[in-house]
Amino acid sequence: MGRPSAGKSTLASHVEDQLVEAGYPIENLDGDDIRKHLHPDLGFSREDRRTNNRRTAYIAKLLNRNDIPVIVGMITPFRDSQEQARDIIEDEGEFVQIYVKCSVEAAEERDPKGLYQQAREKNIEKFTGVNHPFQEPLNPEIIVDTEAQSIDDCVDDVMTQLETLGVLDERLDDDYSFSITRSEEQDITERLEELGYLEE
Amino acid sequence: MGRPSAGKSTLASHVEDQLVEAGYPIENLDGDDIRKHLHPDLGFSREDRRTNNRRTAYIAKLLNRNDIPVIVGMITPFRDSQEQARDIIEDEGEFVQIYVKCSVEAAEERDPKGLYQQAREKNIEKFTGVNHPFQEPLNPEIIVDTEAQSIDDCVDDVMTQLETLGVLDERLDDDYSFSITRSEEQDITERLEELGYLEE
Repeated sequence: MGRPSAGKSTLASHVEDQLVEAGYPIENLDGDDIRKHLHPDLGFSREDRRTNNRRTAYIAKLLNRNDIPVIVGMITPFRDSQEQARDIIEDEGEFVQIYVKCSVEAAEERDPKGLYQQAREKNIEKFTGVNHPFQEPLNPEIIVDTEAQSIDDCVDDVMTQLETLGVLDERLDDDYSFSITRSEEQDITERLEELGYLEE
Repeated sequence: MGRPSAGKSTLASHVEDQLVEAGYPIENLDGDDIRKHLHPDLGFSREDRRTNNRRTAYIAKLLNRNDIPVIVGMITPFRDSQEQARDIIEDEGEFVQIYVKCSVEAAEERDPKGLYQQAREKNIEKFTGVNHPFQEPLNPEIIVDTEAQSIDDCVDDVMTQLETLGVLDERLDDDYSFSITRSEEQDITERLEELGYLEE
């Protein structure tokens, strides 16, 4: 979660790549895609934003219940929706809230879709952080600061912290029937390659 | 798909059991559950029914794209929605339309939720088949007639036809790295058991 232009989609797609690389099945539910395909009728009022967040959490839960991990990049501006998502997801899987932190000034400077500019010119009503609320999460599992860190550092941070949280190890346990972390597996693979055992 | 009280949910849950038994991951998206969790706000107007069907197809597609087969038991009263569901699903997976056939008289006789009675007493507006359209599908892959057949026979029919359609074989291919159908696997397993090779 995070404000518009904070780097949510970019981070999500890089983390998705890393997870796919590591052998995880993964579904990346992009906020814009979900709106377009699931409920193009929903607008940006408080109630519509809450509905958008709630429905997306429900879909993530359906996927989780079938052992498909899900990444969701969505603004999720209200704290009650952030907590509701947690409640819905934790019913079936593990929930990790990642706050993609960025000041409104830096996001506006970035503004790849030109949305801030349009909002300032009053063409967009209810634009998060400009003329509509954005509530910082109280206890996110992971915070990355896209203003202070490069995108690569943010991705590394997320991967390391997911591992620390124990979220990434389970599947490897399945593969090996003993506990091994992603970085341990990588070290071993590299060592075996050096020794010439993994030619393909 | 099929009219209210045709036996869609009953059939879906029995087929789900058979598929789980056969080792398939499976998600059963029940029509009532989807309405309750995803969009409790949707009613039963033509447009709301179409929205309900379209969103459900989109969710099935998300699951299919992650190799999770999905069963959906929904009235799907309009032919355009039936075809739209096919288009959405076939984008990612295989679509099998099962028409759970039953005359309105037999469904009304059955009426486990007392819905037909309420509809007749004018308490339910837009009740499918009574005062709202129900369009028979033109080319369903599978038809079961819950009026003429027992539920067990319907389930057997669906399983046999899924196999004939080649939908069930893929996963077994994955397991064995050669082609084997479900019934062939069952025969072999039984034979191995007889010979005492599969004691557990």
